Amino acid sequence: MTKVLVINGPNLNLLGEREPEVYGKVTLESINSEMTKLSKELDISLEFFQSNHEGEIVDKIGEARKSCKAIIINPAAYTHTSVAIRDAITACSLPVVEVHLSNIYSREEFRHKSLTAPACKGQISGFGLESYLLALRAVKKIV
Amino acid sequence: MTKVLVINGPNLNLLGEREPEVYGKVTLESINSEMTKLSKELDISLEFFQSNHEGEIVDKIGEARKSCKAIIINPAAYTHTSVAIRDAITACSLPVVEVHLSNIYSREEFRHKSLTAPACKGQISGFGLESYLLALRAVKKIV
Amino acid sequence: MTKVLVINGPNLNLLGEREPEVYGKVTLESINSEMTKLSKELDISLEFFQSNHEGEIVDKIGEARKSCKAIIINPAAYTHTSVAIRDAITACSLPVVEVHLSNIYSREEFRHKSLTAPACKGQISGFGLESYLLALRAVKKIV
Amino acid sequence: MTKVLVINGPNLNLLGEREPEVYGKVTLESINSEMTKLSKELDISLEFFQSNHEGEIVDKIGEARKSCKAIIINPAAYTHTSVAIRDAITACSLPVVEVHLSNIYSREEFRHKSLTAPACKGQISGFGLESYLLALRAVKKIV
Amino acid sequence: MTKVLVINGPNLNLLGEREPEVYGKVTLESINSEMTKLSKELDISLEFFQSNHEGEIVDKIGEARKSCKAIIINPAAYTHTSVAIRDAITACSLPVVEVHLSNIYSREEFRHKSLTAPACKGQISGFGLESYLLALRAVKKIV
Amino acid sequence: MTKVLVINGPNLNLLGEREPEVYGKVTLESINSEMTKLSKELDISLEFFQSNHEGEIVDKIGEARKSCKAIIINPAAYTHTSVAIRDAITACSLPVVEVHLSNIYSREEFRHKSLTAPACKGQISGFGLESYLLALRAVKKIV
Amino acid sequence: MTKVLVINGPNLNLLGEREPEVYGKVTLESINSEMTKLSKELDISLEFFQSNHEGEIVDKIGEARKSCKAIIINPAAYTHTSVAIRDAITACSLPVVEVHLSNIYSREEFRHKSLTAPACKGQISGFGLESYLLALRAVKKIV
Amino acid sequence: MTKVLVINGPNLNLLGEREPEVYGKVTLESINSEMTKLSKELDISLEFFQSNHEGEIVDKIGEARKSCKAIIINPAAYTHTSVAIRDAITACSLPVVEVHLSNIYSREEFRHKSLTAPACKGQISGFGLESYLLALRAVKKIV
Amino acid sequence: MTKVLVINGPNLNLLGEREPEVYGKVTLESINSEMTKLSKELDISLEFFQSNHEGEIVDKIGEARKSCKAIIINPAAYTHTSVAIRDAITACSLPVVEVHLSNIYSREEFRHKSLTAPACKGQISGFGLESYLLALRAVKKIV
Amino acid sequence: MTKVLVINGPNLNLLGEREPEVYGKVTLESINSEMTKLSKELDISLEFFQSNHEGEIVDKIGEARKSCKAIIINPAAYTHTSVAIRDAITACSLPVVEVHLSNIYSREEFRHKSLTAPACKGQISGFGLESYLLALRAVKKIV
Amino acid sequence: MTKVLVINGPNLNLLGEREPEVYGKVTLESINSEMTKLSKELDISLEFFQSNHEGEIVDKIGEARKSCKAIIINPAAYTHTSVAIRDAITACSLPVVEVHLSNIYSREEFRHKSLTAPACKGQISGFGLESYLLALRAVKKIV
Amino acid sequence: MTKVLVINGPNLNLLGEREPEVYGKVTLESINSEMTKLSKELDISLEFFQSNHEGEIVDKIGEARKSCKAIIINPAAYTHTSVAIRDAITACSLPVVEVHLSNIYSREEFRHKSLTAPACKGQISGFGLESYLLALRAVKKIV
Repeated sequence: MTKVLVINGPNLNLLGEREPEVYGKVTLESINSEMTKLSKELDISLEFFQSNHEGEIVDKIGEARKSCKAIIINPAAYTHTSVAIRDAITACSLPVVEVHLSNIYSREEFRHKSLTAPACKGQISGFGLESYLLALRAVKKIV
Repeated sequence: MTKVLVINGPNLNLLGEREPEVYGKVTLESINSEMTKLSKELDISLEFFQSNHEGEIVDKIGEARKSCKAIIINPAAYTHTSVAIRDAITACSLPVVEVHLSNIYSREEFRHKSLTAPACKGQISGFGLESYLLALRAVKKIV
Repeated sequence: MTKVLVINGPNLNLLGEREPEVYGKVTLESINSEMTKLSKELDISLEFFQSNHEGEIVDKIGEARKSCKAIIINPAAYTHTSVAIRDAITACSLPVVEVHLSNIYSREEFRHKSLTAPACKGQISGFGLESYLLALRAVKKIV
Repeated sequence: MTKVLVINGPNLNLLGEREPEVYGKVTLESINSEMTKLSKELDISLEFFQSNHEGEIVDKIGEARKSCKAIIINPAAYTHTSVAIRDAITACSLPVVEVHLSNIYSREEFRHKSLTAPACKGQISGFGLESYLLALRAVKKIV
Repeated sequence: MTKVLVINGPNLNLLGEREPEVYGKVTLESINSEMTKLSKELDISLEFFQSNHEGEIVDKIGEARKSCKAIIINPAAYTHTSVAIRDAITACSLPVVEVHLSNIYSREEFRHKSLTAPACKGQISGFGLESYLLALRAVKKIV
Repeated sequence: MTKVLVINGPNLNLLGEREPEVYGKVTLESINSEMTKLSKELDISLEFFQSNHEGEIVDKIGEARKSCKAIIINPAAYTHTSVAIRDAITACSLPVVEVHLSNIYSREEFRHKSLTAPACKGQISGFGLESYLLALRAVKKIV
Repeated sequence: MTKVLVINGPNLNLLGEREPEVYGKVTLESINSEMTKLSKELDISLEFFQSNHEGEIVDKIGEARKSCKAIIINPAAYTHTSVAIRDAITACSLPVVEVHLSNIYSREEFRHKSLTAPACKGQISGFGLESYLLALRAVKKIV
Repeated sequence: MTKVLVINGPNLNLLGEREPEVYGKVTLESINSEMTKLSKELDISLEFFQSNHEGEIVDKIGEARKSCKAIIINPAAYTHTSVAIRDAITACSLPVVEVHLSNIYSREEFRHKSLTAPACKGQISGFGLESYLLALRAVKKIV
Repeated sequence: MTKVLVINGPNLNLLGEREPEVYGKVTLESINSEMTKLSKELDISLEFFQSNHEGEIVDKIGEARKSCKAIIINPAAYTHTSVAIRDAITACSLPVVEVHLSNIYSREEFRHKSLTAPACKGQISGFGLESYLLALRAVKKIV
Repeated sequence: MTKVLVINGPNLNLLGEREPEVYGKVTLESINSEMTKLSKELDISLEFFQSNHEGEIVDKIGEARKSCKAIIINPAAYTHTSVAIRDAITACSLPVVEVHLSNIYSREEFRHKSLTAPACKGQISGFGLESYLLALRAVKKIV
Repeated sequence: MTKVLVINGPNLNLLGEREPEVYGKVTLESINSEMTKLSKELDISLEFFQSNHEGEIVDKIGEARKSCKAIIINPAAYTHTSVAIRDAITACSLPVVEVHLSNIYSREEFRHKSLTAPACKGQISGFGLESYLLALRAVKKIV
Repeated sequence: MTKVLVINGPNLNLLGEREPEVYGKVTLESINSEMTKLSKELDISLEFFQSNHEGEIVDKIGEARKSCKAIIINPAAYTHTSVAIRDAITACSLPVVEVHLSNIYSREEFRHKSLTAPACKGQISGFGLESYLLALRAVKKIV
């Protein structure tokens, strides 16, 4: 079975409580459980990882290059500031799909620029929980 | 049955011939036929429209606000230059999903900025033909 | 009798329906009929033209240089992107008045820059339907 | 009778003498007298105020919020540099119409940016003396 | 007793009436009276000065260098445009504390840049009336 | 015989009348007839196309990839704004020569940047009618 | 009793040793003990936290949203680079006061921009140890 | 006898006391008296004017266009921010010489840009008191 | 017979050896000999000059204003950095044609800006050796 | 014996596997062992530290100020984003040498700017493993 | 007797012939002879040097540090491009006065920035031949 | 024996005298003699070349491509302005090492950008005389 790592970046542990007018009321747990449901259908096994630490995300991506076939990542705030995560994505040589809950292009100017997207296979943004499920389907096709 | 308009912008009629190292070998016809297959599964009816004319795309979006429930658009070159299409998207009040075959964030600098994305519900880029199919699934959820 | 061409750019055909919080509830028809009323008072004959196509607007301005004495234009989205319309205005050698329904200077940053205004006689923005009537009076004085 | 304050900013006291190739030969006195004529027709009473002092213009706008129904202002050079006048316009809560004799968009780059326009109801520029008369008509409609 | 000059810049005379959603409902009088109360506790004597004129503020700062031990200033709009007040602050050699009622960093882009702050001892912004009282305590420590 | 497509962009139909101090008094007809004369000498057959419509120019370039061996294009205003024409040039895989009547580098700042030139084989600007004849000779050598 | 979290960012553990000409000779311990003294007077209980890790600061802010009533933070270097801390501040919904020992507006250009300030209630900078004590008083008023 | 107006802008009344490491120890009085001495030699009569008020300087320049033959101006801080003084210089049609005590090009970045210099005949900066005397000699030659 | 000066800038002496993937394998000698052949046909006499020294090129242009009727110049690297050569071109009052072997608009960003082009009659770039021959024909027409 | 700390930043643990076309095939272990060999020759003792965590690198630099005489650091991705590491370098008061395996100036634009270099003694980039050995020799001279 | 070196940069050998509408009709010889006259009056001996070569100007400045007491330089085009001359000015430790015939601030944008001025004692621009004479008087005072 | 060319750019002939607080007291002669010593150890023969002329440096690099195996260059001021030297480095196809005495990244903003570095193998800056010796060792490894 294909193994896929799902990484959620800073503050996404607070989903459901945090700015519901921007991010909706869905929690990270419910995203994970919806992904798990779909993953069975697609014959994929998932590993979930959430961290507020840029370094831990870099560590995790580095380790995944051996054990996984693809990565789905919502780098959250680090999307706009982390060259380290970008380099980790390039270094791991896996196909990586970047997802965002909200449409980052209709928010503040500084959120329009993604440092990580150029290193990814593709990007899906603006569909809430559905962004993750679409990413899973994308991964299924790529791998 | 939900009706969805699929718009393809300038030069996409040449798909398959045009810069295959960037856009792949898939033709617009095969994209349309794959979309048609999936649309049946999702109980959606599709209308296809391709034009190299900014004005025709604006016309079409304006007309669709009465007859359709959603739009999937690959504005191609107009992504980066057309305020008119952006305004048409906002004016039509329909959910619009922007798609791109290639990952626009790993190409020339001027392709990183999408004028149309802020007016859309969301954006999917980088998955080739699959970008359109994911958009169709996204539309199914939104409508 | 002085003949004046009135050009309305992209998406203005949707006036009344489109983003009423920005553009108000007045329709293009009612603008035209109010202008017609005032034009009689001022002894001016009007020709109305609306198009979503940059090229058609360029064509129209080129033709008007023979048949008209002045032009009133709301280039809408093309205000911010069209060097072709700007060049057409310069090329036709007629006095041209640029109008906007909304105050473009209190909207998004990219709407603050008018590419067409430098080629016009003057600009009137922010007074809704009244912007057109003021433009008609301005034209009366200039011609 | 509706009272309207007409403010003219720095160096406009020199009109008629100053750079006639840019501003024409009309004097501030003749502008005022043409406005007075039209104001009677429109049942408006006018108060005229000219100052080269940013602070006096701010003072005047602040006082007008009690005694007037609208303001017509040509901020001249302060258009491009005064946040204080912009804030005064916002603070007074009256409809304010910005006017310019010349088309500021066909002059030096630094004159293209108006700091005050975003706080105004609308802007009229490029019609010489006629700019003021159009503003008066605009005010009549707004109030 | 230590004498401290309190300067309020343009439009602050309208406090309480002006944009209450931004500046709150407190008036300049009530700020002054709260400051007076606290100043007695801290053994400081206060002189209050409000002006909409950049030049008068420069004059005042120049005079204060002889008679006062410190200055508390809310330069309001001049924060963002006045090199003259910045130079006056440097020239007077007194410790100066810049205060703002609102958090200028969460407002329009052009309000994020303070020309005067680099010449001051420090800056306090965002606490409404309390900003002034904190400034008074800061001054007490510095002098 | 080698077939070459000659495309003239917006407002070039007005040549001879339009701003003669910039573009000279030569008409498009006389350019075409001079080109025809030279083309016979060089054993080239020419097809002439003028349009004010960006979309029509894109259409035309797309069609030419089958029927022609090279393109000579004066994109006029679209030089500075059209990614669609740039993409069409790249997509058609033909050698394309960009020409300008005037020296675009000695005109307004926004005319210094050509979006289309990077996709072309080369560029010739500033020699009036002669620019087209030189382009024809260049094409002769390339094909 | 109101509980307030006090966060100190990277390198502030070295206070007293580190660049004393910029930051003074006061140590973090003495700041904490001065704050403790004042907190008793104001009936506030304090929790102190120092970390050089962006992720730990994000973690801490996330946890504090349950246990504390307000946060005082000196993000130090992360002021200028951390979108993650900014998002954490917004996500926690507590009033947050940003403090700086030095006047960041009179230092290097890149220190003038605070990414975190727009998400805070207010900012106090330039008063050394006193900045923290003023922040504590500000918090007392807000809560 | 030729009459020349000498204008000194904001904070120059404090010369001798103000930042002597930048401006030297010379006072405005001594500059004026040195200028008076030289003016006699050159058969010029001088009028001295110092103001911290942008508006007063604009007033003064406007009045001088009748009574004087030339102006020597040190606009100080207004050099970098005043379009109003620039416009007054252009409007008065007199030859104007801009002077600076310090070399403005070796100070802070924002002091490198003079808004007023383009409207002047020439500029002399960096020679302390001597800048004024050289300006007087320059004026003698021009008039 | 018309005399024309042909100037080649820095590193062009290495043509044929230097980066053949950019500049081709043609040598400067073969360019000169091809030009000589064509010049005879066109009844032009040529003088060739190559230098790596900006100053020598300036000297040469200055001298040519007496002895030549036109100049063909490939300023190479100095295209992008030399105001001195630009000024020399303007000063000599001869028609000057700028040529480039490669298409400078499809190379590094800093090569897109030509400082010298605005001072020239026109520019030809991208045709290798042929660029020079086209320039010679252009010169023939101009003189 | 002089003790020197060698810090390697994010993703350098993957050296040898990661993008060998950019970074070569050498591993971090082989770099360390080559450094150890040379260090003995130079009578230096080395401590090696690799981390993907910005905060850990800041911690380590802070601790080293007591135990080491110098630092050699390859901040990798943090070179371009970390003010915290820059401040740590300044705070520790040790001579620090920045090294890079690749020539960062011939890579993507955003890698040309080093935030950390201004705080270092010097920088060595582009020599692969040899960069570290040169740094060690540099350190030997400095200490 | 004080020895002063007078350096004139590129194209100034053509003065009198070159763009007389910008630079006037005076020749370099007449400037030199007027300077010689004044220098005798001021008891200064002059050495004149003109070169179109940046390197020769750098050489000359380097040599002058031993033999001269001051330098008057018109770097002409090199004003805007030469860091080498700037560094030479700083390196020679002599007082240097920069002069310009025309007012560089009322010409093209790229001429507003002087790279050399920050390294000079002061700058005089806009007075034609008189600029040099004023510079000579300035030098007299400084030395 | 491997021959290496050592090039020193403008003003480096003044080393030891010039701004010793930036460049130290070492002379170019002593750098050369230290290099000579080390070169013997490394079995390299050196040729030294210093010039203030950009063109001579370009000439020299062009000649070296035949006679030398590598180049060590300190382009000094030309680092920041010379495309010609950059092109010469690329054209010569030799490995080139750029050196700087001072840390150019801790000096003025305009010195942070090296135009020549992207064309070099690597760069060493900030170690004074030692920079050259390290470069020699680097060259030894590369060749």
